[in-house]
Amino acid sequence: MTPGPTGAIGVFDSGIGGLTVYKALRAVLPPAERIVYLGDTARVPYGSKSEATVVRYALEGGRFLAARGVKALIVACNTMSALALEPLRRAMVRPVIGVIEPGADAACRATRSGIVGVIGTSATIRSGAYHRAIIDRLPGARVVARACPLFVSLAEEGWTENDVARAAATAYLEGLRGEGLDTLVLGCTHYPLLKRVIGETIGSQVRLVDSAEATAAAARDLLLDGRLLRDAGAPAAPGTEDHFYVTDPGELFHEVGSRFLGRPMGRLEQVDLTV
Amino acid sequence: MTPGPTGAIGVFDSGIGGLTVYKALRAVLPPAERIVYLGDTARVPYGSKSEATVVRYALEGGRFLAARGVKALIVACNTMSALALEPLRRAMVRPVIGVIEPGADAACRATRSGIVGVIGTSATIRSGAYHRAIIDRLPGARVVARACPLFVSLAEEGWTENDVARAAATAYLEGLRGEGLDTLVLGCTHYPLLKRVIGETIGSQVRLVDSAEATAAAARDLLLDGRLLRDAGAPAAPGTEDHFYVTDPGELFHEVGSRFLGRPMGRLEQVDLTV
Repeated sequence: MTPGPTGAIGVFDSGIGGLTVYKALRAVLPPAERIVYLGDTARVPYGSKSEATVVRYALEGGRFLAARGVKALIVACNTMSALALEPLRRAMVRPVIGVIEPGADAACRATRSGIVGVIGTSATIRSGAYHRAIIDRLPGARVVARACPLFVSLAEEGWTENDVARAAATAYLEGLRGEGLDTLVLGCTHYPLLKRVIGETIGSQVRLVDSAEATAAAARDLLLDGRLLRDAGAPAAPGTEDHFYVTDPGELFHEVGSRFLGRPMGRLEQVDLTV
Repeated sequence: MTPGPTGAIGVFDSGIGGLTVYKALRAVLPPAERIVYLGDTARVPYGSKSEATVVRYALEGGRFLAARGVKALIVACNTMSALALEPLRRAMVRPVIGVIEPGADAACRATRSGIVGVIGTSATIRSGAYHRAIIDRLPGARVVARACPLFVSLAEEGWTENDVARAAATAYLEGLRGEGLDTLVLGCTHYPLLKRVIGETIGSQVRLVDSAEATAAAARDLLLDGRLLRDAGAPAAPGTEDHFYVTDPGELFHEVGSRFLGRPMGRLEQVDLTV
C-alpha cells in the first residue's frame, strides 16, 4: 500500500547537489510537509559512472526511502533522472519525479529561437535524455548539448567566481556561443552555484533554466493532483523536522551543505544502502 | 598460507590513478611477474570521503585481491595509503606496501633546505600521514601541505596543460611559493599528469617527487628481500598477462586508462566488491 498524505516526501541525490532541489521544495511546500533527504555521499559522483552502476545505486536508494514510508520520490539528480527514472518507476508504487522533464518543460516555455542549450555531467549528456524530452515537447527545436564535468568539482570546492571557474566556463561554453541559443538548461544540480560565471560567459541574451525550481513546482502540482499534499495552513508538528541521511559520515556534507542551503543544516544520520 | 613467488602482485587503487604505479612497476619488475590491478571505479574518488568509508572500501578490495592469491598488495592510492594501510596490514597475511612511505623517503633524500611541500587530496592532507612520515625520517624538516582536490578532475578531463589547469595551479600553489621549499611531493597518483603545469607554477628550483616511481622501486626491493620476486631472466608464460578489474563497467577506464599508460589497455573485467 502506498502511504497517504501524512507520509514524508523523499528527495534522493547522489550527494550534496540535490540540496538545491530541497531548498526549492521548502520554498513552495506547506510547512507541515516533512522531507526525508538521502545523499549517497559514499559513492558520489554518479555523473562519471556507467548506466548499469547508476541504476543499481538508484534502486538501492529508492528501496531505502520506500522503507521509510515516503509518499513520493523526487530524484534530485540529473544523472539519475536521465538514466534510472524508468527502473525506479517500475520498482516503486508511488509517484517518482525526476528533474529532466520539469527542466525540459521550463526550457521549452522560455525559448523563442527554438535553439536550446543543455549542459550536464558526462552521463547525463551521453544519455540524450534532455534532447529527447525537449524534442517531445517542441518538435522543431534544436538542442545543443555539452558535458561540463569539472563544474561539479568547482562547486564543491567553493570556486564559483574565481579565475579557475571563469577559465573552465570559457573552455566549455565558448563553442556554444555561436550556436544562436537563447536558453541554456543547467542540467546538473551543482551548476546553479556557478550561475553568475556561466551567465557572463554565455552572454546575457541567453536565459538560464534552473531545473531545481521547475522540479519543485512540478512536484507540488503532482502531489496536489494526487491529493497527497498537506493542507497549506497546517503547521509543522513538533518533532517532525526534515531528516538528512548520508552514506558517508564526513563533515563535508555539513560544510558544503550549508553553502548550498545558505544556512546551517539540520539533523544528519549515516546509513548503509548495501545491507 | 601466503602465496609464494609464483603468485601475482596486487595493485589496488580507488580508480584509474593507480595506473601510474602500475606503469612504474612494469618498468622495474621482471617480465615473468604478473600484476592484478583493481580499480574501484564505481565508488571513486576516495579522496573526498571520510576515514571510516575509505577503510571499509580498502578492506573490501584487499579481500578481493587476497582471494585471487596475490603474494603482495601494493596500495597505489595516496588516500588509501594515508588512511587504511594499518587496517589492511592487520587484515592481510602478506606484505602491504603503500605510496606514502616510499614518497616520503624520496622527498627526504631530495631536499637540501629541509623544507618539503606536499600536495594531495583533502583526505590525504587532513590525515597528516606525509607530515608524520617525513618528520620520522628527517626530524628537523618543515612540511608545508596543501590539498588540491581539483587536480584529480583536471587529470581525468585531460585538461593537463590548458588555461584551467594553469589557473587552478596558481590558486593552489601560489601560497606555497614564499615558503622556501625545494622539494614538492605529488601526493596523489593523478598529479604526475599535471607535472609540467605544477612545475612551471611552483618554479624550476623545486624538485617534484613522483611517489609512483619511488613505490615501484620500494616494492621490487621488498619482494626481493622476501624471496618473493621471480627470476629476472624468466620470460612471461603464455596466458598469464596482467589482469585489470574495475567495479564500474564504464568505457571511461579504457579511454582515460590509455591516457595514463600511454598505450591501449589490456584485459578488463567488471566485479562487485560488496557481495
